[in-house]
Amino acid sequence: MRLVNAAGRAALVFDGRLVDVVSASAGRWSARVHELYESWDTFSQWVRRNDAQLRARAVNGPQISDVRLAAPVPFPRQVFAIGLNYREHAREGGAEIPSTPMVFTKFPSAITGPTDSVVLPSQYVDFEAELVVVIGKPAEGVGAHEAWHYVAGLTLGQDLSERAVQTAPPKPQQYSLAKSYRGFAPVGPVLATPDEFANPDDVEISCHLNGVEMQRARTSDLIFDVPHLVEYLSSIVTLLPGDLVFTGTPSGIGWVRDPRVVLRPDDVLVTSGDRIGSMRNTFTRPTK
Amino acid sequence: MRLVNAAGRAALVFDGRLVDVVSASAGRWSARVHELYESWDTFSQWVRRNDAQLRARAVNGPQISDVRLAAPVPFPRQVFAIGLNYREHAREGGAEIPSTPMVFTKFPSAITGPTDSVVLPSQYVDFEAELVVVIGKPAEGVGAHEAWHYVAGLTLGQDLSERAVQTAPPKPQQYSLAKSYRGFAPVGPVLATPDEFANPDDVEISCHLNGVEMQRARTSDLIFDVPHLVEYLSSIVTLLPGDLVFTGTPSGIGWVRDPRVVLRPDDVLVTSGDRIGSMRNTFTRPTK
Repeated sequence: MRLVNAAGRAALVFDGRLVDVVSASAGRWSARVHELYESWDTFSQWVRRNDAQLRARAVNGPQISDVRLAAPVPFPRQVFAIGLNYREHAREGGAEIPSTPMVFTKFPSAITGPTDSVVLPSQYVDFEAELVVVIGKPAEGVGAHEAWHYVAGLTLGQDLSERAVQTAPPKPQQYSLAKSYRGFAPVGPVLATPDEFANPDDVEISCHLNGVEMQRARTSDLIFDVPHLVEYLSSIVTLLPGDLVFTGTPSGIGWVRDPRVVLRPDDVLVTSGDRIGSMRNTFTRPTK
Repeated sequence: MRLVNAAGRAALVFDGRLVDVVSASAGRWSARVHELYESWDTFSQWVRRNDAQLRARAVNGPQISDVRLAAPVPFPRQVFAIGLNYREHAREGGAEIPSTPMVFTKFPSAITGPTDSVVLPSQYVDFEAELVVVIGKPAEGVGAHEAWHYVAGLTLGQDLSERAVQTAPPKPQQYSLAKSYRGFAPVGPVLATPDEFANPDDVEISCHLNGVEMQRARTSDLIFDVPHLVEYLSSIVTLLPGDLVFTGTPSGIGWVRDPRVVLRPDDVLVTSGDRIGSMRNTFTRPTK
């Protein structure tokens, strides 16, 4: 299943065309994507059982490219973000390889849509393409072997980061706050269920700035993969439906390049992933 | 105004007795405290205008001590927590005095009530009494001079911390995760509006373990006081109604004492504050 938030209404995607969930279900399911995660197993079953009818309906649906998409989880209750989860990225920043997942948050008010424009609060904003996990049911003490059953699907996120605030002395770094300016968490465009992938533990993600490739990696290179992140997080906190896990960014960020690369007004940042599609975010100066 | 969450129903407190908000308003206001924060200014006005009737009604209300209280914000959308915000506490841990507020989160699924029992996941759990700010309306770019207008009220929190996870190498410390085990954020008992205090920037808080005083401080000793925390946070993120700010703990934590003090099964931890009252949390072993 591939699900989007089409201007506030949940819609399924078949061959690039949308089917409105409320209409197709005669009102059984909510237009609000976040309510679908609360009953994810039942909703997924309904989609599977009605696959033929939904596909038939999609033929006359709007094209996904004609609709303004919002984040597939517009206001999660909890956002977990993992630092330094690719070896090459840890090395490029001169950091130690973590022995356990390094966890911070992106505060939920930072979430924005996959084609939204983001205001740059300073000249020190960097990109970080990431695979994002959406939780599908409450998870406490879940083992890695069963972790995928607790995942609704995968999407993309940009872990936009204000590096001056993040790295200002004294230590420790301000991960959570520097990554939570308004608009600093574009998410989308599609939520793709694990069965959409040949191997959900090996998803290619990439990031292009003004057409130039900046990052490319496969999630099979994660230090802590999705099952182990779910296991670790759920050993401590209760994961809830619709919670997000930003799994970490690969090497290629702008801040450690020589010469340094930062996001500027009118830049176009494209973040792509297998089966998930592409986000295309632009940047503007503050108006005041 | 002093507001509580009485077993899931919003109630006002007058001289130790409760008035149910739904009954007293003939259903105008919700039983759910989190919905009151969404219309906080209007709700506060209603309480002020009906002060005499509400007080008269309270005379026959239940005693606060007879009711099981839940957290006055049971599931905030965002929880900001400030590290090292009292000089003596930074010194006792051998940390530098921060030049800007050091911000992490307690994930919201950790929140629990002011008399709830908390399961100890290990032998390394420590206490941290804190003043907690509850936001009363959306705040972006709010200056310190006007910050109190954006605060619904003050309550208490325990920033319970699993020190082994928090301090495990490599750096940086796992602040957010180590402080977010289930039940690690008791909050309450009362939300007291700023006008309840002689000076809301000078509130005494304390913490007793099994009857022995462990922490005592006044919030006038905060490095970054409430107005400056609201100013700093709202310069970066959008603060939302019902969001919490754990303002930091004073000196006296168990981990740096000689001999070290940790929380054990059957311990009684009492956290108290002017006008807010006392939380009384107990601790248990894991059942498995």
